[in-house]
Formats: sequence, C-alpha cells, structure tokens
Amino acid sequence: MLLQTSNKELKRRNEKAKRILSEKDLEGFCLFSPTYIFYFTGFSFIATERPIALLFNSEKDVMELVVPALEKDHVEDLPSFIQAESYPEYPGKNHPMNFVKKRINDLGLDKKSACLGIDSDGYAGGYGYKGPSLSETLDHSEVENIKETLDKTMMVKSPEEIEMIKESARWGNLAHRLLQEYSAPGMIETEISERASFEASMAMIKTLGEDYSLTKYGSRPASANFRGQIGSKSAIPHAITTNAKLKEGDILITGASSEVGGYISELERTMVLGKPTAKQEKYFNLIVELQDLALDTIEPGIPCSKVDEVVRKFYKDKGIWEHWRHHVGHALGYRMHEAPFFDLGDETIIEPGMVFSVEPGIFIPGFAGFRHSDTVLVTEDGIEYITYYPRDLESLTID
Amino acid sequence: MLLQTSNKELKRRNEKAKRILSEKDLEGFCLFSPTYIFYFTGFSFIATERPIALLFNSEKDVMELVVPALEKDHVEDLPSFIQAESYPEYPGKNHPMNFVKKRINDLGLDKKSACLGIDSDGYAGGYGYKGPSLSETLDHSEVENIKETLDKTMMVKSPEEIEMIKESARWGNLAHRLLQEYSAPGMIETEISERASFEASMAMIKTLGEDYSLTKYGSRPASANFRGQIGSKSAIPHAITTNAKLKEGDILITGASSEVGGYISELERTMVLGKPTAKQEKYFNLIVELQDLALDTIEPGIPCSKVDEVVRKFYKDKGIWEHWRHHVGHALGYRMHEAPFFDLGDETIIEPGMVFSVEPGIFIPGFAGFRHSDTVLVTEDGIEYITYYPRDLESLTID
Repeated sequence: MLLQTSNKELKRRNEKAKRILSEKDLEGFCLFSPTYIFYFTGFSFIATERPIALLFNSEKDVMELVVPALEKDHVEDLPSFIQAESYPEYPGKNHPMNFVKKRINDLGLDKKSACLGIDSDGYAGGYGYKGPSLSETLDHSEVENIKETLDKTMMVKSPEEIEMIKESARWGNLAHRLLQEYSAPGMIETEISERASFEASMAMIKTLGEDYSLTKYGSRPASANFRGQIGSKSAIPHAITTNAKLKEGDILITGASSEVGGYISELERTMVLGKPTAKQEKYFNLIVELQDLALDTIEPGIPCSKVDEVVRKFYKDKGIWEHWRHHVGHALGYRMHEAPFFDLGDETIIEPGMVFSVEPGIFIPGFAGFRHSDTVLVTEDGIEYITYYPRDLESLTID
Repeated sequence: MLLQTSNKELKRRNEKAKRILSEKDLEGFCLFSPTYIFYFTGFSFIATERPIALLFNSEKDVMELVVPALEKDHVEDLPSFIQAESYPEYPGKNHPMNFVKKRINDLGLDKKSACLGIDSDGYAGGYGYKGPSLSETLDHSEVENIKETLDKTMMVKSPEEIEMIKESARWGNLAHRLLQEYSAPGMIETEISERASFEASMAMIKTLGEDYSLTKYGSRPASANFRGQIGSKSAIPHAITTNAKLKEGDILITGASSEVGGYISELERTMVLGKPTAKQEKYFNLIVELQDLALDTIEPGIPCSKVDEVVRKFYKDKGIWEHWRHHVGHALGYRMHEAPFFDLGDETIIEPGMVFSVEPGIFIPGFAGFRHSDTVLVTEDGIEYITYYPRDLESLTID
C-alpha cells in the first residue's frame, strides 16, 4: 500500500527537473512555492513568514533545501540526494535572503551569463514577510520564471500519484456515505459533517495503520461537508458557512475527500432531503445529463476546451444558460485545483494520466443549486472513474 | 456579541485606505490578496485559479470587487459602499485580466501620470493560474507596491478586532480543556483532537446561535490538536502528523484556537502524561521562566527586537542556546502569523492595540520540546492576557 511518495519517485522527478532545465538552457533553479518544493523533495511544511527555498544545480546534480532553524530537525527524513542547510530566523539581523544568496553562490549558481529558473521572483509569503526579489539579490545570474513549465510537468500523473489519488477516493467515499447517513431535518450542518469526518478519519487511520499520516498542514485524514450549500444557499457554489440547519425539502450539495501522501480526490453530490419535487427532479436530471455529456466527451488527443464547448452548448440548447456559473472542471492532485481546466480558453491537449474533476452545475438563485463532481483518470481511450459514489436520484434521496 | 466585522468598521477601513493613498500620492489601488480584500470588504472566499480583485478610486470614493461568475450570487451581502462586477470564467476566451483592466479603466484609474497601489503585480494564485502582471496590463498608470504599508495599517487592532480575538480565545480554551481531558495513554492523537474539536465547535455554535458562522474556508469553529508533537517528536516545532499514539511519560505540545468573524487566537501548552521526571520538570520550568521574561518585557514604546534580545540572553545565560529554534512570537489577527515579530531584526515600535503570540520554546532532539504560547494584547502600560489557560506544571500534568 503506497501512502507516501517513494524516494525512487522523487529521484525520477529530480531527473525531470534536469530535463526541464536543460531544455531551457538554465543552470539550475530556486523555488519558493510549497507545492513545487513538495513535488521535488516530499517535504511538506507549515508556510509562515520564514522563507524556505529549494536550490538545484543541475550539472553538479546538487539539490539543497534551505530552511529556518525551526525546521532543521524536521528535514532529517529527506532522501539522501537532497541536502539541507538552515539559517537562524526571519527577519533576523541578517535577512534570510542573504543566506539564500550565499547558498546559491556556494552551489556555483550565481555567475555571469548564467540563468536560474524561478517560480516567483523572491519569497511570496503572505504572513507579514517582506524581502528583496531574487533578481535583486543575485550578483550575476539572470532569472527566468518556469512556473508554467513546472505546472505542465505535473499535469500527467505518475503511477504513484494515481495510486494515492485512488486511495484518497476510498476514504472520501466512506466520509460521504456517513454524511448521507447522518443527514436529517433539524440537524446543524457542522454536527453532521464533523461526525462523518471524525468517524471516516478514524476508520482510515485504523485501517491503514501506523504508516498512514497526514502530509499537509491544515487538512484532515478524511472529511465530508456541505460548506453551507443547503436549501436555497446550495445555489452559491462557493458558500462558506457552518451553521445552516437542514430541513425537509432541502437540496444539499456536498463535498468529500481524504488526503493520502498529500494527494486528494474530489467527490461532490447533490442530495435531496425528502421526496424530490418535480422541479428538483428536473434540474437534478439535467446535471446528470450535463455530467454524462462531459464524461463521454473526455478522451486523449482533444483540447480541454472541447469539453467545455460541448457542455456549454447543452446549457444553451436546454435554455438554462442563465444558470451556468463555471467551467466543467479542473485537474487536481496535490493541489485542490490545478491546470489544465475544462474551459473554453484552455487549449491543452488531454493526455492519458491526467486527473480531472468533472462538475458542471446549475445554480438558481433563491431556489437551489445542483452539481455532482467526480474525479476521473484519463486512459488510452477515454476515462476511468476514480470516485465511485452513486449519482442517481434514488440513491441520493434521503427519506 | 460581535461575531463579524460591522459595516461601520469597514467604512472606517475605507477611510484608512483613502489616507494611505493620499499620503503616497496614489490615485487608487488594485489588490489581489484574499487577506487585504477581506480587510476592506469583509468578503471571504475560496481562492482558486480565478482572480478576484479589489479596485478603489480614492478621489471618487468608489470601491469595487471584481469576481468570477461563480461568486456573483455570493457577494450580495457586501456593504452598500462596495459594488461588484463579474467576469465569466478563468481562463476563458478573454483572460480575466482584460476584464480587470476594463474595470480599472472604467473607474478612471488607468491614465497618464497616475499611479496605483498594488499588493502584488498581478494575481499570484497558486492553482494553475497564469496571466500577465498588472503593470503589463495597464496602458498608462504606473504601479507601486503598498503591501508593507497595508501590513503596517493592520498592526494595531481595532476594538472590534480585539473583541473577536477575545471571543476566539474562549472557545480555543474550551477545545484545549477537552483535549487535555481526553488525553490518555494508548489513544491516537486524532481521536483526541477530533473529539475535542467537534465538541468545542458544537458548544460554540449552540452557544453563539445562528449569528455565528465560519468565515474562512478550511478553518473550523474551534479546534485543538497536537500536530504530532508527542513524545520525542515534541522537539519538532512544526511537526505534521495525525497517527502518533500517546504513551505514559510523553511530553505533549498542543495548539488550540477558534475562528470568530475570521479572527483567531493562539493557545499552546506543554503537558506531561504521567508524573514528570526531574529533567522534564527542569525544562518545563525554564520555558515558563522564558515566557514570563518575555511577558514582563513587552510594553509600548520599545522595539519588538528588545523582547527577543532579552529572551535570547536568558537562553545563553542558562546554557540552553543549542535548544533555541525560533523567535519569541508574532502578531496575529486574521492571519495566523503577521508582522511585527518579536525578533532581533524587527525594529517596529510596540504600540497599544497590537496583539501578539508569546512563545519561546526549548527543543531537544531525541528527547522532547517545551513551549507554551499565549495571545496577549498590548495595553497603555504593558499587556493583557487574551488566552488564559493555566500555565503551571501541576495543572498541565495528566495523571
């Protein structure tokens, strides 16, 4: 059972980094984003005011993580091909960027006619951090933003990543099952979601054993909730509440996931509390049709935009365009949303190994919203479902 | 009972924005950070690939939130002095930055010899977003980064902010009390923390009533946990695990908080599971001394660095410098860490109304870590505790 990224996989990503840098004629990189740092090192951390930087000298094959003293006992599990160095503290008498500069220099990366790949020009940190950009900091090397290339590299998931996303879907499914079981009129949403999340998390920990542990700060092993999408508020796709009380006749939109080695899946369902009205049934069936249409369209070799195009046409043909609020879906993996997107403006060609959410929705202010979201893997000739919760009205009606 | 930022307070912040812009001779601003957008509008949202921008024409006194269609039914509760406009989707056929540009232009903000305040040059979004910088996007206006000024403005908390931070401390206290009660040898950390967090959250919701609702996506009403800082792993200040099993003799480092109107408090304690050993008692008493020293030093009019200086001297005098890992504390409020910092390198003068964590720690790899963290408010002549959980060894020993 694979519960975290293996060192072999990290080594393969290290080779990927070399290829990217070589293609772009770059000597190395300096990355600050926790996402890319995790991708290349497996190290997950609480991002604060203290910059953490990943340096790589491609030719010398030296990868080094620069961390504050606070993290120096935390990086001891890094694979052997990644070294770590620590600076005292931010802001400190000597700004951490001076330490980053010194390490870049010591790794032979700050020199004339050299160029370094970056993901942002300096640490972006949103916790009161201030500091110079990297281009201001370096004496000689130029910098080139390679964020888009890194995002492209991460689009096709490896077998290890797919395995962890699939494992995540199992526990998201359990959390959702419990959420549905505990949903009843008169209950406060938090009571239902916390109970379901707690029980699913404990089942997950006890089933997977001591090798399972949370990777990302702030996430939970398994969880399921409504996030306020209850009754007429289900029409607000990104509602954020905790205190809504369920009542007979409500449409409920859910979300469930779990985290395995930092990877997640996405499962969302529209449920009806009580016997569905004709109007509820009509829109419920329409979003199943919309989702089926999207699922049937996805295949390798076509642009992502095509999926959105076909789905948008359906909204227009059915006269429900006014209820459209967002594109069909997004890639996901370590991040809850990633490129590419099933969106008119995204011409990325769909490839086997990509993992997407598929979630066209209908949102009618004052009445209700309707949306299922499934996570699917693109295969050689179509898709494979990663999430597998029932999608039909009967299964999602709570009597 | 104040459970969210009032419109009056938002209006005061609007006036603050005008003063900042006037002092810097700027025509207005364009902000992308969810933190600053929340500060000026009270609107909290799930940040994704879709940019959200807050525009302000100071002279005309027009504040406008630019959102994707997905959020257009979600911004209806904005105070009357903030208008909203929506673009269809990201990336879309027409990139959202073109819409932002158009709105900036329509608000009369893109013109020769004008300058706009920004918090970052374009949307920073980490969810696969790509797009042009704002300076590339504008035809005429220059841009100037005012992030540091905004952070400064947010340093002294308003009475409303302090009230919400204090309310947060009450429920963090309850979550911590339950965490301590449920801690026992043989238990898995998640079992304890999820149960304590669930019960404290429910008590909070039922006590505060329907006016209480979560503001920030991904947070919980009230929570308390160990985050893996159990036994020898308590020596890793930013550990992230969920599966550690408590055993007799363990040092436990905790963290508890709750969210009220987006605001939080910070409460952390070192507990001992069973009768403390002499060595545990020694270091426990040392961190209480360290914390007392910091608490006694804090007063308005002195630089933040002074607090760190006094505390660092104590580590050195006691011969425990090798166990130092981080500065004494940080400001907090809407963000879990904010400037200024109790750090040698931070010369910010302490002012009444600032809210800080005070948390010097001792970390001994392979043995244990020791740290209490309290949230305090700076008053006219010293400090007032916002968190109030007992700090002594007897109270924190679990028999």
